[in-house]
Amino acid sequence: MLKAIMSSGFHLAKGSPKPTLPEDGLLRLFSMRFCPYAQRAHLVLNAKNIKYHTVYINLTEKPEWLVDYSALLKVPALQLPGEKGQPSLIESLVIAEYLDEKYPQNPLLPKDPLKKAQDKILVECFSGITGAFMKILTQNANIEEFWVALDIFEQEITKRGTPYFGGDKPGFVDYMIWPWLERLPVLEFATKESYSFDEKRFANVSKLIKLLKEDAVVKSFYATPEQHLEFWRTRKAGKANYDLLASL
Amino acid sequence: MLKAIMSSGFHLAKGSPKPTLPEDGLLRLFSMRFCPYAQRAHLVLNAKNIKYHTVYINLTEKPEWLVDYSALLKVPALQLPGEKGQPSLIESLVIAEYLDEKYPQNPLLPKDPLKKAQDKILVECFSGITGAFMKILTQNANIEEFWVALDIFEQEITKRGTPYFGGDKPGFVDYMIWPWLERLPVLEFATKESYSFDEKRFANVSKLIKLLKEDAVVKSFYATPEQHLEFWRTRKAGKANYDLLASL
Repeated sequence: MLKAIMSSGFHLAKGSPKPTLPEDGLLRLFSMRFCPYAQRAHLVLNAKNIKYHTVYINLTEKPEWLVDYSALLKVPALQLPGEKGQPSLIESLVIAEYLDEKYPQNPLLPKDPLKKAQDKILVECFSGITGAFMKILTQNANIEEFWVALDIFEQEITKRGTPYFGGDKPGFVDYMIWPWLERLPVLEFATKESYSFDEKRFANVSKLIKLLKEDAVVKSFYATPEQHLEFWRTRKAGKANYDLLASL
Repeated sequence: MLKAIMSSGFHLAKGSPKPTLPEDGLLRLFSMRFCPYAQRAHLVLNAKNIKYHTVYINLTEKPEWLVDYSALLKVPALQLPGEKGQPSLIESLVIAEYLDEKYPQNPLLPKDPLKKAQDKILVECFSGITGAFMKILTQNANIEEFWVALDIFEQEITKRGTPYFGGDKPGFVDYMIWPWLERLPVLEFATKESYSFDEKRFANVSKLIKLLKEDAVVKSFYATPEQHLEFWRTRKAGKANYDLLASL
């Protein structure tokens, strides 16, 4: 399943020479190992069994040439060497939808325009969760805001009556929200005793988390709670250890 | 062109009885006459010559039943009476893409997945403009931030070498950004002497604005600079005059 032709896994920083584009025509993903948005792109690429190169970027000291691939200096950026001008795409959701249209294998979004729109609205609503997540970690905001945002997802998966948002297997919504579910232990660490994941309130989301942890695609780009915590600690201390997993 | 089966044009507020769903099966748009996001939905519906009902909403004193159509109490919300459960869609870009997929006439987004993704990224970048717009109006931010965000659009339309972002006629990008271009006079009013639209710096965007002002779809849901200004003045004074155009 792990089809990424990995770079060494080390993150390139300011002053690094610009990496040569291999001549194999494979897609090239500019990423950061602990970025949840970049993780979305890895998950979709892996779900579709697409071979690709990864260039990891140090987001504290960005390489000068990053702008050539990502005008807004963000990751993920996906370079398409087979297209005229070898352009790059940015924005995790745009990348995910592009890949889903261009590579029909293992489709993630429903074909029906209404169902598709409803999945996209649900992922837009997830910004309530990503926003609360960052506010808790950076401004010590109250965790209840996070749970209230998660209520929508518990209600929706209950309404759908399927193990995954995508039905009997993970789909677009599942992979787009997973990176934050994987980071719940960071939230627990940050909020200490005020954290309590209510397994009754989030009965079906709990089941989903357990299922996704066993999913081959999720496993193909997974970091343990300890690894996420260690990255978060180093980041908070102003010395983000991007290369934490590079030697693994 | 103006195919909306208009409500009276008056905005329904708290305490208003819930409007009955007509039995004609037409789409129903929940809107606010001066909301730029809602305007996007009107433009797409009109561009596709789709007949629809409009229910205008007073966003200061929201009707109690708005939640039945828009969980986050935002406009636009588009109700689909022909679908099971008569669901509503929210988020202007999701609504636009849904309509473009469901109603193939006068396609707005390119069919090619790469070109489509590039148009969507461009509209995502437009959030730099909408963000700057609000910061200027509500926090007296410096207008230069707005012009810097607009530079991207000048560069891109110049690169495309076509009169519209959509080519020889307006497309997705053109209609999605138009509502803010229509409101430039509000910016001028708010920033007074520090406002200066540089027709050299924005040569091709200037041409685009002139062309779009003459476009039948844009005209089908247009408000004059004076009308926008009057709405803005009343809104700033805490008494938004939603019904400014209701008797026209």
